[in-house]
Amino acid sequence: MNATVTGFVGLPVISSAERLEQFIRMSDFDHPTLVVDSSAIVGQYHALKSGLGRAKIHYAVKANPEREIVRKLAAEGCGFDAASRAEIELCLSQGAAPEDISFGNTIKRPRDIAFAYQAGIALFAADAEEELHKLAEHAPGAKVYIRVVVENTEADWPLSRKFGCAPEKVLSLLGMVRDLGLVPHGLSFHVGSQTREPVMWTGVLDQVAAVWRDAQAAGFDLQLLNIGGGFPADYGQGEVPHSTYAAEVMRMVEARFDNVPVIMAEPGRGLVAEAGMIAAEVLLVSKKSDTDTYRWVYLDIGKFSGLAETMDEAIRYQFITDRDHEMTGPCVLAGPSCDSADVLYEKRPVQLPVGLCAGDRLIIRACGAYTSTYSSVGFNGFPPLDVVVI
Amino acid sequence: MNATVTGFVGLPVISSAERLEQFIRMSDFDHPTLVVDSSAIVGQYHALKSGLGRAKIHYAVKANPEREIVRKLAAEGCGFDAASRAEIELCLSQGAAPEDISFGNTIKRPRDIAFAYQAGIALFAADAEEELHKLAEHAPGAKVYIRVVVENTEADWPLSRKFGCAPEKVLSLLGMVRDLGLVPHGLSFHVGSQTREPVMWTGVLDQVAAVWRDAQAAGFDLQLLNIGGGFPADYGQGEVPHSTYAAEVMRMVEARFDNVPVIMAEPGRGLVAEAGMIAAEVLLVSKKSDTDTYRWVYLDIGKFSGLAETMDEAIRYQFITDRDHEMTGPCVLAGPSCDSADVLYEKRPVQLPVGLCAGDRLIIRACGAYTSTYSSVGFNGFPPLDVVVI
Repeated sequence: MNATVTGFVGLPVISSAERLEQFIRMSDFDHPTLVVDSSAIVGQYHALKSGLGRAKIHYAVKANPEREIVRKLAAEGCGFDAASRAEIELCLSQGAAPEDISFGNTIKRPRDIAFAYQAGIALFAADAEEELHKLAEHAPGAKVYIRVVVENTEADWPLSRKFGCAPEKVLSLLGMVRDLGLVPHGLSFHVGSQTREPVMWTGVLDQVAAVWRDAQAAGFDLQLLNIGGGFPADYGQGEVPHSTYAAEVMRMVEARFDNVPVIMAEPGRGLVAEAGMIAAEVLLVSKKSDTDTYRWVYLDIGKFSGLAETMDEAIRYQFITDRDHEMTGPCVLAGPSCDSADVLYEKRPVQLPVGLCAGDRLIIRACGAYTSTYSSVGFNGFPPLDVVVI
Repeated sequence: MNATVTGFVGLPVISSAERLEQFIRMSDFDHPTLVVDSSAIVGQYHALKSGLGRAKIHYAVKANPEREIVRKLAAEGCGFDAASRAEIELCLSQGAAPEDISFGNTIKRPRDIAFAYQAGIALFAADAEEELHKLAEHAPGAKVYIRVVVENTEADWPLSRKFGCAPEKVLSLLGMVRDLGLVPHGLSFHVGSQTREPVMWTGVLDQVAAVWRDAQAAGFDLQLLNIGGGFPADYGQGEVPHSTYAAEVMRMVEARFDNVPVIMAEPGRGLVAEAGMIAAEVLLVSKKSDTDTYRWVYLDIGKFSGLAETMDEAIRYQFITDRDHEMTGPCVLAGPSCDSADVLYEKRPVQLPVGLCAGDRLIIRACGAYTSTYSSVGFNGFPPLDVVVI
């Protein structure tokens, strides 16, 4: 997070990261709390937009559906990718126009399709015959883009085969779209979340470009290429600047797809992750045995209260403590619940100050995406993650 | 679930499973809903109690904290194991006496210890020095049991090393308990959740019995042996009857521990899992490619909306459909969210009727434990799992 934002009155201009850290240090939280800098998200939006050029951004609302984030992005002209009826309602309530909202979930309830259609949403994703029948019945005449499953193994949070149909099935689905009275509008794909280098898009773009050409050759006048998400956040590994990354991806897209009328991108993590930090607390530091070389550090937040993306230790968060000047040693990091699966990092322990102890504050960086809504409704009696937008 | 319960007026007496299934079939749910038969839980409590004999049952509230479950168990004289302040408040509000509540989380917030102590809770778990200092400060004179980490690899949901100290550390912690003015009251351990056969307790009980004898030899007059949970639920694999299982465990305990004044057990899953079924709906059935041998079946409930225990495909749920008379075929089962990790069973596909399609009702058996509170607060805009107690 290098965006410089307006400082507090009377203070010099500071970075968003400094602003978040300062806010957390000046505050007293009873529970783990996510603090989000909404102006940094707006800055990030413009950075991505400058790199993406003519591509239209649809923010993947699921990454962080805080009302103020949606409201500010809508005011900037950002579009939205919604996963459910509730997300569509949220976007509409915060000023988004229906034509700027796509219903991107390929697994929709029929009554939610009907709701979206009545609300004016005109763009829907699908990857299967049954879904097309639902759309034909509840959203007659709607524009449909077919999601293609791609081979992608280079992302930090790789996608399963859950979404999309095989490339060889696309033409028959597009034909079915047309035969059902819907509009075969385009294609979508996803390179995988947190795809760290633009070059990792190469193979995926080649696969989708081949499908696109086949569809054109078969007489489908496709209008939309939805390049999905995958734009990475900086979790301390020193990523490429967002605008540079986006520009490089667009260069690769334009080189492979001739004259695509509309290009759309759905950043989620890449837009909001760096704009949030979690204020947490150390509850316990212990050694299981006096001869153990590593300590166990237990926080008041864990896998079931916001840090679900530590599953399989996929996302490696960065930590700030008041003892960062001290020597460090290896720690297993765990959450506060009575659930033995609530361990954040064990295979690859984290380095934390040797003097860390119960009661110490711990700040977790780049937590703006996939934290607040992942948290459980009340497992072990712990409340969901608090969120404060500054 | 073989307990026979009182049927509806005018109907013959039916089993709890039949009653749940009938209730679900007669109802129309807008969202995935867990239906719990509280009288079956009371029946299960008495089955376990008859097997456990003199051992006092403390229900592990985290398994399912529905108010009515807690209220009914409290009325039967059941004790409670609480993981947090909120769970203690819940138990007290539903009629539990403070002396029947233990604060079993080894990772407690100091202010929650103080609250519990003020509320009259007198029994606390610990496994580390820092925790004992917190207890000495905020719960002076309280009874403390030390949790021992044991080698246990035979459970379906095995526990990590997250809880407990190594056996060789127990005596020094017990000494510290005494030196801090607390009461060195006993030991606890956990064999691992869903330990399917009583014989699987053997090695663990041998380990803890050795520690118990060492503590006695060192002059500690221990009063309490807390044998934890691990009592299995029937997920369709045909478990030993609950009372038989419990009696066999108690026989093994008594054979290894001489004259323990108080024995305590903390069933969670074993008490409530079988007494609940989830009403769900099929949203989509598809093949990724026409040549695939298996189908993808997408439900309106997934890993983030109640079925978290499918993590690593650990708990294998059983399903009921209206087409169970049809031929079956292998399916990958997935949830409704736009998250590629929201796949329930893929490595070991499930067999489901070949005619299954969008809109079909699907009932998930034995879902009374670790479902409702595991569900996310609103990931993808989906509401938490609804719960109905009958």
